[in-house]
Amino acid sequence: MITITLPDGSKKQFESGATPMDVAKGISEGLARNVISANFNGTTVETATPLTTDGSLVLYTWNNAEGKKAFWHSTAHVLAQALEELYPGVKLSIGPAIENGFYYDVDLGERSISEKDFKAIEDKMLEIARGKYDFRMRSVSKTDALSLYKSQQNEYKVELIENLEDGTITFCDHATFTDLCRGGHIPNTEIIKAVKILSVAGAYWRGDEKNKQLTRVYGISFPKQKDLTEYLTLLEEAKKRDHRKLGKELELFTFSQKVGQGLPLWLPKGAALRERLENFLKKAQKKAGYEMVVTPHIGQKELYVTSGHYAKYGADSFQPIHTPAEGEEFLLKPMNCPHHCEIYNTRPFSYRELPKRYAEFGTVYRYEQSGELHGLTRVRGFTQDDAHIFCTPDQLDAEFKNVIDLVLYVFGSLGFENFRTQVSVRDPHQPEKYIGSLENWEKAESAIINAAIDKGLDYEIVEGEAAFYGPKLDFMVKDALGRNWQLGTIQVDYNLPERFGLTYKGSDNELHRPVMIHRAPFGSMERFVAILLEHTGGNFPLWLMPTQVSLLCISEKYEKYAQKVLNLLENNEIRALVDNRNETIGKKIREAEMQKTPYMLIIGENEEKENKITVRKHGGTDLGQITVDEFAKIIADEINKGMKTF
Amino acid sequence: MITITLPDGSKKQFESGATPMDVAKGISEGLARNVISANFNGTTVETATPLTTDGSLVLYTWNNAEGKKAFWHSTAHVLAQALEELYPGVKLSIGPAIENGFYYDVDLGERSISEKDFKAIEDKMLEIARGKYDFRMRSVSKTDALSLYKSQQNEYKVELIENLEDGTITFCDHATFTDLCRGGHIPNTEIIKAVKILSVAGAYWRGDEKNKQLTRVYGISFPKQKDLTEYLTLLEEAKKRDHRKLGKELELFTFSQKVGQGLPLWLPKGAALRERLENFLKKAQKKAGYEMVVTPHIGQKELYVTSGHYAKYGADSFQPIHTPAEGEEFLLKPMNCPHHCEIYNTRPFSYRELPKRYAEFGTVYRYEQSGELHGLTRVRGFTQDDAHIFCTPDQLDAEFKNVIDLVLYVFGSLGFENFRTQVSVRDPHQPEKYIGSLENWEKAESAIINAAIDKGLDYEIVEGEAAFYGPKLDFMVKDALGRNWQLGTIQVDYNLPERFGLTYKGSDNELHRPVMIHRAPFGSMERFVAILLEHTGGNFPLWLMPTQVSLLCISEKYEKYAQKVLNLLENNEIRALVDNRNETIGKKIREAEMQKTPYMLIIGENEEKENKITVRKHGGTDLGQITVDEFAKIIADEINKGMKTF
Repeated sequence: MITITLPDGSKKQFESGATPMDVAKGISEGLARNVISANFNGTTVETATPLTTDGSLVLYTWNNAEGKKAFWHSTAHVLAQALEELYPGVKLSIGPAIENGFYYDVDLGERSISEKDFKAIEDKMLEIARGKYDFRMRSVSKTDALSLYKSQQNEYKVELIENLEDGTITFCDHATFTDLCRGGHIPNTEIIKAVKILSVAGAYWRGDEKNKQLTRVYGISFPKQKDLTEYLTLLEEAKKRDHRKLGKELELFTFSQKVGQGLPLWLPKGAALRERLENFLKKAQKKAGYEMVVTPHIGQKELYVTSGHYAKYGADSFQPIHTPAEGEEFLLKPMNCPHHCEIYNTRPFSYRELPKRYAEFGTVYRYEQSGELHGLTRVRGFTQDDAHIFCTPDQLDAEFKNVIDLVLYVFGSLGFENFRTQVSVRDPHQPEKYIGSLENWEKAESAIINAAIDKGLDYEIVEGEAAFYGPKLDFMVKDALGRNWQLGTIQVDYNLPERFGLTYKGSDNELHRPVMIHRAPFGSMERFVAILLEHTGGNFPLWLMPTQVSLLCISEKYEKYAQKVLNLLENNEIRALVDNRNETIGKKIREAEMQKTPYMLIIGENEEKENKITVRKHGGTDLGQITVDEFAKIIADEINKGMKTF
Repeated sequence: MITITLPDGSKKQFESGATPMDVAKGISEGLARNVISANFNGTTVETATPLTTDGSLVLYTWNNAEGKKAFWHSTAHVLAQALEELYPGVKLSIGPAIENGFYYDVDLGERSISEKDFKAIEDKMLEIARGKYDFRMRSVSKTDALSLYKSQQNEYKVELIENLEDGTITFCDHATFTDLCRGGHIPNTEIIKAVKILSVAGAYWRGDEKNKQLTRVYGISFPKQKDLTEYLTLLEEAKKRDHRKLGKELELFTFSQKVGQGLPLWLPKGAALRERLENFLKKAQKKAGYEMVVTPHIGQKELYVTSGHYAKYGADSFQPIHTPAEGEEFLLKPMNCPHHCEIYNTRPFSYRELPKRYAEFGTVYRYEQSGELHGLTRVRGFTQDDAHIFCTPDQLDAEFKNVIDLVLYVFGSLGFENFRTQVSVRDPHQPEKYIGSLENWEKAESAIINAAIDKGLDYEIVEGEAAFYGPKLDFMVKDALGRNWQLGTIQVDYNLPERFGLTYKGSDNELHRPVMIHRAPFGSMERFVAILLEHTGGNFPLWLMPTQVSLLCISEKYEKYAQKVLNLLENNEIRALVDNRNETIGKKIREAEMQKTPYMLIIGENEEKENKITVRKHGGTDLGQITVDEFAKIIADEINKGMKTF
């Protein structure tokens, strides 16, 4: 008999050789129907793997990330089988599950796959799935494994097997198909009810451009047709909201081949939007006692040697800038903190003057490989809404809580209501990865956790995710499409004050080390605007919209009245523009809708006569004919409703 | 007989051999008494030089820059004689006039000169001057010249003479003193009435640090004792207003050895001041139809190859930034225009949409040798209040005039009332120095001159001062101490639109090239703040002051009332702070004076009882006890009075 411990701590006895599926059946028939994967003593196992020792067992269903992973990895096997049947002689390489679905990299020889082939592949996969084949793992010797793939002239699998140790090699079979595989499958193909091939792309074998380019076939699968339909709808919506697409349509930003990849150029509407966000935060920061500073975008190498960044990141960064004479070396600024430490060091401080809170919208530059770049979310130059708080250890708790309040104000005012937080602490098993003393790390970690508890945050502690110089609190925001984004970070740092020799005079008249907090509620202006675009689909909160109101003249005759309305709106600090082009009102509405303009005012004969305006909301809602004053009140109310207090 | 043409065009006949002094006497005895130097046919001559051909003659007095130059250069001869008498065996090298005074570089051997020796040198110089010696030029053969200085073992003069051509060598004698000299002297030593040795410094022979270090003795002289007294007062005042000193005292900016020389760090008060200046200009620019953009601080080398900057400046700039992989090359942005051209190129424009006016407070980086750096006026990184206007050739005149209006508004609101302008055009003799067609250059130059005339500017056309890519209009501002600063520039450019292939669709439906205007009313934020500091001595216009009002509590008892006053002031958008430290009121006033705070409000028992405040202006004027409302009105009136309309 063996003793199986379940996640709730309960223990059950089974005969040695019982499978996870047997354990599930022992709990309930319902669970057994839904179990699709399992983990035994920290290792992924099949639901049919015989268990022969005592241990802890976790059972996964489709609703767990691990369950989805097994589902999608298993579907990759089915895809591979379908490809073998449709493209005889195809050579398989690897086929993992990914965040959403799976892919398989295959060598098609002279053939290729295009969108028109997707339907046939999907049909073949569903046909196989309907055959109700079990996935079964078996061990093979290295010799047998090599001999199989050598006979198929599959150099990829041969290379993979050659790097494995004899005795650890397993194959997975289902139907007539066999694949080299470490395991982690669902019980049977029959639960794969819906399949979609999403795209094909080129992918170098082992990611090395010196190797042969294979065909990567991306797909996704679900246990219900309805799930697939929902997913495809979401995908369609995400495409519509892609910030790169919206950024172009709304003329917010652009990139230039000549300026360089990953270096955004903010167009007038984007720059105005960004400035509005900056002013919003500046105002709150002023209230919270921050002071703005301005520092250069380069610093001598010595600055980053002092901070420790050079030793850590130097080789992977933009390389040093040399001067034509004098042999100096500068680096593009990858972070603002060393500069702010030098500002703190300008003069002595007494404990009575702390905290000092230096804020800067500081543009930093970090090298990213071109393949990693993506719109505004992964760039080579970005502006952090950065600030560094220098305080006494006694002030740390209160300061950390104040920062959390500021972050919550920012999220609330921008419509991010759904978020959780992560406290990133050290990996206790790798102390060599971190700089600074154990004692300081412990102080910092507990300050963060205390603040999270005090503010009632939904938080999770993750070991090993801390930066090398200190632990941090990250905010993970869920957007309107249910996607998670890391937004906003607060970080305690006992290390830089040490390296820069920062001090303050305490009440005991002795010099002490201040503690430093790094924080950025937006994270970066670029990334934040990208996420806000995808979250809102371009329908920003009203206070943030580049153009809040479009005045659409039915004909040029009403231009003068439109101008009068415009002036009234501007007196109410409403951002409006007049569209008096010689175009149909229908076209003007379509274009204003395209630009996501929240309110359209129709200006024609009747409106002028009544001294009113006809109001149409973005999306089509008609608010009828009202006065400008009434309209200004609607706008003011909507803005006030969306703005949190701080 | 020879015919002499005078600057007013009049012609006079003289016997051949007449001297400039004879010509002066021929005009008036008064002029003859004041003439101290002359220029004949474009060459500096002595007042005693016999004229033997027809030609144009200009006579200079102390009131001309040329006259001062002769005066100071001649005094350098007297200094050299004094040094020879006081330090026998001293070896002379060179002794030119400079912007304010003169210097002489001498080799003192083992001896040295310090401040305590200045008096003796001045006395000796005045003693020589009183001897009423004429300055007399004479030609010497190269052999004789070399033999004189070889006998004195003066290797410096020997080196200078060896590089001269025989037949062109002249000596100048006065009293017992002789010096190798090209000429340009006053008639007689007697007019040197006041002399001051200002400083000594080390200076390498020929400016090359591989050579021997000589002693540079700086001095200045005047025709009247009163002029010297005034100059020294001015110098003292200039020292007090030195922006580096004030910047430190007022905590506006700092430099850090670690960040790097020439890279200013803006401290909170400086950053706030700068932001206020930026907001002031932003507001005016918005009114004038500008749109803000934001661009990165680096660009690919290709961008600057396209713009032509790389070929022109590459070798003398900060060197390229390489990436760790991918072999890319980036450069720190030395100007914003290439980036703005790429923004213009984002989409096609119709003539109806022009002008496009892109503005950016764009930080640029330019390498300067460390010896050239000076506070905020000569830095390696600075923020231009930059904008680029893209317009049709028809719009150029109007746009240029609009820009002049904006510049005049900026100068007026910041208290620079005294300025003249310079139109910098090509050097017609060196066409190879410029890029772009002759026709375009002529169009651009006449557009600038037309605008200057139309706006009634005091302008001067200077050949050869244009940038390589276009002619420009520069504003030269005279500060409170009478010093001239170049501030603000407007530049026409037909060249970059060509190099970037910029186009717009004209009313003829064909593609045309837009014209570009570069402009920066402040020039750079750094340089402008430096000049404003030296102009105002830190007493900025009230609207700009970091702290407008200090509330000084007579004792801690009145803190609550002070807080109430503070709130009232803040409601009136007055920037104030409370000084409730446990210090005497005298100390509080002294410190507020030091910080140049425009208004101090004394808060004590009587004030609280009467619900009033006692107002003291910076400098000591007492405005008595008034209500907060009355005070707020004083502030509002002062701000409105200083602000020009736009």
